[in-house]
Amino acid sequence: MTNLKDIEISQATPLEPIEKIAAKVGLSPTDIEPYGHTKAKITLPLPGQHELGKLVLVTSINPTPAGEGKSTVVVGLGDALNRAGHQTVLALREPSMGPVMGMKGGATGGGYAQVVPMEDINLHFTGDMHALTEAHDTLAALIDNHIHHGNALNLDPRQIVWKRVLDINDRELRQTVVGLGGRTSGTPRQDGFDITVASELMAVLCLSEDLTDLKRRVNRILIGYTYDREPVTVADLKVGGAITLLLKDAIKPNLVQTLEHNPAIIHGGPFANIAHGCNSVLATQTALQLGDFAVTEAGFGADLGGEKFMDIKTPVLGKTPDAVVVVATIRALKYNGGVKRADLEQENVAALKQGSANLKRHIKSMQQYGVPVVVAINRFTSDTDAEVAALTAEVDALAVPAATTTVWADGGAGATDLAEKVVTATQQPKDFHRLVPAGADLMTQMTAITQKIYGGAKVELSGKAQRQLKTFAKQGWDKLPVCMAKTQYSLTDDAHQLGAPTEFTIHVREFAPRLGAGFVVALTGNVLTMPGLPSHPAALDMDIDAEGKITGLF
Amino acid sequence: MTNLKDIEISQATPLEPIEKIAAKVGLSPTDIEPYGHTKAKITLPLPGQHELGKLVLVTSINPTPAGEGKSTVVVGLGDALNRAGHQTVLALREPSMGPVMGMKGGATGGGYAQVVPMEDINLHFTGDMHALTEAHDTLAALIDNHIHHGNALNLDPRQIVWKRVLDINDRELRQTVVGLGGRTSGTPRQDGFDITVASELMAVLCLSEDLTDLKRRVNRILIGYTYDREPVTVADLKVGGAITLLLKDAIKPNLVQTLEHNPAIIHGGPFANIAHGCNSVLATQTALQLGDFAVTEAGFGADLGGEKFMDIKTPVLGKTPDAVVVVATIRALKYNGGVKRADLEQENVAALKQGSANLKRHIKSMQQYGVPVVVAINRFTSDTDAEVAALTAEVDALAVPAATTTVWADGGAGATDLAEKVVTATQQPKDFHRLVPAGADLMTQMTAITQKIYGGAKVELSGKAQRQLKTFAKQGWDKLPVCMAKTQYSLTDDAHQLGAPTEFTIHVREFAPRLGAGFVVALTGNVLTMPGLPSHPAALDMDIDAEGKITGLF
Repeated sequence: MTNLKDIEISQATPLEPIEKIAAKVGLSPTDIEPYGHTKAKITLPLPGQHELGKLVLVTSINPTPAGEGKSTVVVGLGDALNRAGHQTVLALREPSMGPVMGMKGGATGGGYAQVVPMEDINLHFTGDMHALTEAHDTLAALIDNHIHHGNALNLDPRQIVWKRVLDINDRELRQTVVGLGGRTSGTPRQDGFDITVASELMAVLCLSEDLTDLKRRVNRILIGYTYDREPVTVADLKVGGAITLLLKDAIKPNLVQTLEHNPAIIHGGPFANIAHGCNSVLATQTALQLGDFAVTEAGFGADLGGEKFMDIKTPVLGKTPDAVVVVATIRALKYNGGVKRADLEQENVAALKQGSANLKRHIKSMQQYGVPVVVAINRFTSDTDAEVAALTAEVDALAVPAATTTVWADGGAGATDLAEKVVTATQQPKDFHRLVPAGADLMTQMTAITQKIYGGAKVELSGKAQRQLKTFAKQGWDKLPVCMAKTQYSLTDDAHQLGAPTEFTIHVREFAPRLGAGFVVALTGNVLTMPGLPSHPAALDMDIDAEGKITGLF
Repeated sequence: MTNLKDIEISQATPLEPIEKIAAKVGLSPTDIEPYGHTKAKITLPLPGQHELGKLVLVTSINPTPAGEGKSTVVVGLGDALNRAGHQTVLALREPSMGPVMGMKGGATGGGYAQVVPMEDINLHFTGDMHALTEAHDTLAALIDNHIHHGNALNLDPRQIVWKRVLDINDRELRQTVVGLGGRTSGTPRQDGFDITVASELMAVLCLSEDLTDLKRRVNRILIGYTYDREPVTVADLKVGGAITLLLKDAIKPNLVQTLEHNPAIIHGGPFANIAHGCNSVLATQTALQLGDFAVTEAGFGADLGGEKFMDIKTPVLGKTPDAVVVVATIRALKYNGGVKRADLEQENVAALKQGSANLKRHIKSMQQYGVPVVVAINRFTSDTDAEVAALTAEVDALAVPAATTTVWADGGAGATDLAEKVVTATQQPKDFHRLVPAGADLMTQMTAITQKIYGGAKVELSGKAQRQLKTFAKQGWDKLPVCMAKTQYSLTDDAHQLGAPTEFTIHVREFAPRLGAGFVVALTGNVLTMPGLPSHPAALDMDIDAEGKITGLF
């Protein structure tokens, strides 16, 4: 193991020109648009015909402060598959800058399993996130401007559902009053800001098949209601063309490389706790077209990103996974078994066994879809052999293949065994089936997810949510797919309940129709759509010197 | 004349690869960072040694709804100089997207005198504006986060002077209340949003000599005051490194081309009515290093951008203009002479003569700096020969060379005469002198600008401004350069007073110390730092089709 920081490893590795990475998957310099010398956007549609490769979805147990390293495993697995001679392309999510400035820990893998240039990917990258912010807030300005200039659509300022966004963790903006200052400065009303990755436009971008589909979805977006409680959409405001125009480059997938110079497509990044949590359909499709294997991830645990990948993304993608990898660490399972953060370095087989209930729950969830599951045990130096043996035995008992990985320290060489087991899994017959039939109502969907994925008992609606369901039935929105907004830390809607609780109830306090994305978000518990910064934000330790050398970025 | 729209002309002209444009000024592919195939950032410092070329500043009369076409003349003049065999590089400002979505009329020239790709330059371009927004609002979030987590600096939430920004015309955000929602969602306080180009970070970026200077300036920025009324800066908050890091790419000048395939550097774009109104020092320096001539512009009229170019930018740039071009149109001067907008097509020599007082005022202003002035009469088809003759006579009487241009219809070929007169002007001896000695106090500076540039009589301070001046004297801020925030439509602080009024008073309602930029903004009249959208915003007419073809963007 090395003591180098992620950014030091990244800075010490010479990158290959992006044209060379593109050439590895058959793309010529005119098939891409460079952004600097090591990033590019891919021009779609791709030239020529392509057979689709095998699709590998990487998901994980519930995240803990102990760390799971899902992105690191994704990168290491991709490199391992490439080392084994399988042309493999990654499809990953773009980091949000909000958490980057707040918490230590990037979204680009770590150690020797990183996508690079990590400092650019973690910051402005190719501008997709900013284009989404600009498009979202331009729409907000156009709504208030419409009200200001005569309000021909009869929009009720008390019923605007289109908030504003920034790609920043800024609790101060969660709840605001805007439009103060008198007649010339708009209409006073309650408003608030979400983080950009929670914008419906992010979900729309990630689910769009092309520019035409993007515009169709943008036009469908619900922005508010009239004084007569009739829904008003972007199409009514006649700005679907302008908002789509603002996303003309953001819709193109981005190409970068791993530290081992293998191609990685990084595009779109809704959070999985408040949105659907998967990179764009176009990115995954492109990876499938360019690789024999496409390795992709879904945000947070299998209960959130995993479920949404299966239930929301695959119907649009037109392809289901050939294998699912569930990532776990001994540390995180011990944490789930009740060990305090400070004691995670000590061997504790009993706690590990207890906490592994969380892993088992997620394995079972994914198996219900009829796809082969492989477990990746992402090994830390503090893990003891007894602990690894105990965990392997637990997984063996489920007849699920498991492999330990050391990708942080060893890159692709640390996932040789995992790669083999994944290849074998993708060769097994699969029998994909959905949790609920298409067209099931929201309550049926939520109950199925609660019982079959979370391991809970039932769903309870607040008074407001109940009233909303009645309205939705009239509007024809009651059979759209549901997108659960739930804490990532627990299978329940209470972040403090670790392990694998049973018999619990999921409390839905409110629904948010996302007609452009084509789903209804069910907000449970206290999920925040605008995070805050910690008392010592990562920004305090960041710096750049006269030569442009960066420090403190993880 | 053609009936094609600007974007149609732009789309019909095949662009050269940006590497080829770079090669024209001796830059190799490794000296630039491509953003797509027709945009790039220039890596600084430039390789090798460079002698500085001649500097030509283009400014104008007060803008009117009739249109002056300053940017169009800049582009046409650059192309004409290149046609005449003088290697010329443009240095221009980046458009703000707020006005782009609001008003018809781009910031990239027009007709056959455009910088391209206009649709990219007018929209997200290379992301500089978004990086500034992100950096500005991240700083705002860090300030509120500091207060939320114990407020060790004793910041007074009622005295935070660092507002938030968006690159959007959104009057609804001018005055807000933030931090609502209880203990976990920040501290309730009054706040508001400016447009990004009004951010001090934009001014800081435009005045920085390199990354080190940028960080020094960022650290100096005033963010608010303690409960004991002591100033608090970014350095006190210890996030100067992080904010500078967020601007690491934004500080690099952008290279594009004119329709005639000549190099244009477009970088930085503070508005001239609320900020200093010039493209970045680095862009102008780079243009001077790469060209025998560098043609640059300053925002709005000579009273705003022109004065600030001379008094704020040249001391940092270390170079003063070798010639100043003042652009006027017959239409705009007739408007200044009292003709209504609907009647501008009709010949009216009397009104033209009366309105030309505005032009004369600006010529005189610029001449006071001791630099040769040339007048460019940007000809419209409706201008009659009698009008052109009358205006030429007016200018001749001042012994100032004048040339008519037809750059909109003819590109560089429409500015042959202007180019010749500009070259001659730059060969004249110049005797640059400042309006006031360096280190003059704010009142002396403002009075000199009011009398010598605006043609007015005196400056009056509000009670608040008077109290501020006393505090500034204690803080040592009273001898910083002043940056006047004033309406662009009039030489006075009242937008409705056209022509060349005299004996008027400039009313300063408030000062805003911009310690990072190194100046104090004097807010006069009712200058808005956050514009609104019109009743029919340009966004309503924009569209993009399945193939990515854009319509409605001017």
